Amino acid sequence: MTELSEIGEFGLIEKLAKDIKITNKSTIKGIGDDAAVLNLSNNLTVVTTDMLIEGVHFDLGYVPLRHLGYKSVVVNISDVYAMNAKPKQITVSIAVSNRFPYEAIEELYEGIKAACENYKVDIIGGDTSSSHKGIAISITAIGEVEKDKVVYRNTANAGDLICVSGDLGAAYVGLQLLEREKYIYQENPKIQPNLSGHEYILQKQLKPEARYDIINFFNSNNIVPTSMIDISDGLSSEIIHICSQFGLGCDIYEDKIPIAQQTIDMSLEFNIDPIVTALSGGEDYELLFTVSPEDVEKIKANNLISIIGNITKSNDMNLIAKDGTKIPMTAQGWNAMR
Amino acid sequence: MTELSEIGEFGLIEKLAKDIKITNKSTIKGIGDDAAVLNLSNNLTVVTTDMLIEGVHFDLGYVPLRHLGYKSVVVNISDVYAMNAKPKQITVSIAVSNRFPYEAIEELYEGIKAACENYKVDIIGGDTSSSHKGIAISITAIGEVEKDKVVYRNTANAGDLICVSGDLGAAYVGLQLLEREKYIYQENPKIQPNLSGHEYILQKQLKPEARYDIINFFNSNNIVPTSMIDISDGLSSEIIHICSQFGLGCDIYEDKIPIAQQTIDMSLEFNIDPIVTALSGGEDYELLFTVSPEDVEKIKANNLISIIGNITKSNDMNLIAKDGTKIPMTAQGWNAMR
Repeated sequence: MTELSEIGEFGLIEKLAKDIKITNKSTIKGIGDDAAVLNLSNNLTVVTTDMLIEGVHFDLGYVPLRHLGYKSVVVNISDVYAMNAKPKQITVSIAVSNRFPYEAIEELYEGIKAACENYKVDIIGGDTSSSHKGIAISITAIGEVEKDKVVYRNTANAGDLICVSGDLGAAYVGLQLLEREKYIYQENPKIQPNLSGHEYILQKQLKPEARYDIINFFNSNNIVPTSMIDISDGLSSEIIHICSQFGLGCDIYEDKIPIAQQTIDMSLEFNIDPIVTALSGGEDYELLFTVSPEDVEKIKANNLISIIGNITKSNDMNLIAKDGTKIPMTAQGWNAMR
Repeated sequence: MTELSEIGEFGLIEKLAKDIKITNKSTIKGIGDDAAVLNLSNNLTVVTTDMLIEGVHFDLGYVPLRHLGYKSVVVNISDVYAMNAKPKQITVSIAVSNRFPYEAIEELYEGIKAACENYKVDIIGGDTSSSHKGIAISITAIGEVEKDKVVYRNTANAGDLICVSGDLGAAYVGLQLLEREKYIYQENPKIQPNLSGHEYILQKQLKPEARYDIINFFNSNNIVPTSMIDISDGLSSEIIHICSQFGLGCDIYEDKIPIAQQTIDMSLEFNIDPIVTALSGGEDYELLFTVSPEDVEKIKANNLISIIGNITKSNDMNLIAKDGTKIPMTAQGWNAMR
């Protein structure tokens, strides 16, 4: 194992940056100067940033560093897709305490690089520094979108259909499972964690993917959603942003909300109603969007998308239960401050 | 005082963001969606990022939060100027432990906003989160430059003049003074810190400015430096980047290096040769650049700029002492990892 203090800041940057390749035409100059240089003409540019703190956003007790690196890129890229844009560049800043050897940082970076390769994104810069305790990762992502295709979160119209990609709640129960197994292991280290049969919910928690497939589908089918947001804090929290214009509400149908079987099973194991998991569980990184009714046939043809309700002319956001009763929806999403 | 946990993450973002105004034409959409949206056509875009960690980059024992906020913007903007670009947008991510009340974060943000106002930069997004300990600030700055005016650090030519803005070493001795007075105060809290007469070196440490005046001077005098870098790690460390092309070296003249009287006095008080302070002290945020000999008269007319040497056809970087002896220069700059 190599002590970070042996390598020093410049040595660390050099080691981490040595095999970073530039693949996007808009990246003129990446790592190595005071700033990166980009040529982003004609299109609009989107910029988003996220910070992940050890002990707050992740627990190295069960999160492999490689997965952490991968996920920290994906959460930013997901925000770029939520603007209907394509991610092109990221900057990566990392602060680590000297308790980590160089090899740990390298593993984290392996995950970052793997995500960049998968999503065809260039690493154009960043910062490395020491911290007193733990790891902090701050990533900024830059993307491009044609001028008439950018999609905001608050531009839905009454009558639009509300859609969601994939399924909801899996990452949340994946986290609950990891926390439970960690607790059991701490109580009795002889008991091996029992994770088999739960691969899907664990993957959604540990190594989520961002929905490039949905953005590509929009593009190749000439669909521009009327509004869009990515689900990081839970459906019931995100729908508020979609309905934030005065006089707009929604009806969401409980039986239309997509939930994977593993999510249902694990919710029941934890005595949580699966619909609560789907509404309030965080970190899904699925896309929540609205489309004009004229696009309904195109949307129905894609089995990765569920139509879960519609935008209404009212100020009420309702969940329509299976028996037809209307339940007012309130945000119960994940809140990093509490 | 208001507990952060009372306000919550969304409340905090709302409070901090409420009076943020957008002034740049290229900012289409700032805070409030999954990502900010920019229209950066025609010009090149530069992107830079910096992370500041409590206890590593700053000590709240003597750094007021407002100054910290101001400085954390300035260090990024300085990197944008070092590309001969104009800063336009920043994202701001902050992680804070719950030991800080809301009012402390507000004060930090006041400084961030004051810097943005001074430098005409829009805050377009960011992230707030809790941390287990201390404050971490990560800022990404975006700037614009005309396609034929971007200046890199490694493009100097033999015969070019080496120039520096302002004076060097002040921030370093300012830090030494603050550390000394903190130590004295800790030993005996009855002794008040003695800081009067040292305003210049303290300001260079606590509330530095980035050299927009130099970039404006280049622009209005049709000067494009042949290379440029900002001095954050000390002159002797940065000159290596300027001379990094094979077969290029430099002669730097000791008696041409600009050092303020307060810096000289404080260096001597600490028994440090002032030239060592100027060569190796960090955090100057002055610009180090080279110009073609044909621009020499224009440069000489600006008394904010000192010509300190020239690029040579050799692989040696020399400091020419006052008595004419040549001393090989080596990097002794500040290294955040050690």
